[in-house]
Amino acid sequence: MAWLDEIRWDADGLVPVIAQERGSGDILMFAFMNRDALRATVERGEAVYWSRSRQRLWHKGEESGHVQTVHEIRVDCDEDVLLLTVTQAGAPPIACHTGRHSCFFRRLEDGEWKSVDPVLKDPATIYK
Amino acid sequence: MAWLDEIRWDADGLVPVIAQERGSGDILMFAFMNRDALRATVERGEAVYWSRSRQRLWHKGEESGHVQTVHEIRVDCDEDVLLLTVTQAGAPPIACHTGRHSCFFRRLEDGEWKSVDPVLKDPATIYK
Repeated sequence: MAWLDEIRWDADGLVPVIAQERGSGDILMFAFMNRDALRATVERGEAVYWSRSRQRLWHKGEESGHVQTVHEIRVDCDEDVLLLTVTQAGAPPIACHTGRHSCFFRRLEDGEWKSVDPVLKDPATIYK
Repeated sequence: MAWLDEIRWDADGLVPVIAQERGSGDILMFAFMNRDALRATVERGEAVYWSRSRQRLWHKGEESGHVQTVHEIRVDCDEDVLLLTVTQAGAPPIACHTGRHSCFFRRLEDGEWKSVDPVLKDPATIYK
């Protein structure tokens, strides 16, 4: 597990993670992993994050079914950020808890953050 | 400047920022901004980050010439991560201080982080 030791975990034992969709190249979400989450991600082949709000491992999609199949994991030059290439589950693929494809759906326009991407599925029907 | 107040700045007054290349969709780098950096980025139309190591504003490319022209700024659903769409300067475009296109040049393969992207320019000739 030397590869786990090469990560420069922060003071809380976490590393930021960017999830990018294979094919489209869309940035789907940003989250954190600890050692256990990264190891579980590699073992399962599906993204497992560390939920800072719930303080527990979070197998992405465990409630919604919107799991992320992980194809590739990269680390940056400083070894303190991870980049996942994933296939996002859902029909259509939905990564955001708001029911949108990506969490990055608000764009700065004329001094305002405007929602520019549609809700693909009512969150009430995703989380029952 | 209400749009600046909508960002959920962390305890250090920072927000993580992902820089994605327009066209290729490549993730070039990951850095941080504070309020002044984000305001300067919008005003200049070029990425200005907050350097945590140097504790000062960092106009990306100020030494290397590898500036990033910013086309779009997005915020995520939690309003605590930014995504920039940029054109990376350089011929070829180089974002990483190692002389590579992207900072994410190491991929996990069989339990090892392997460098899989080439050095495009010797860093010694970038930073004089």
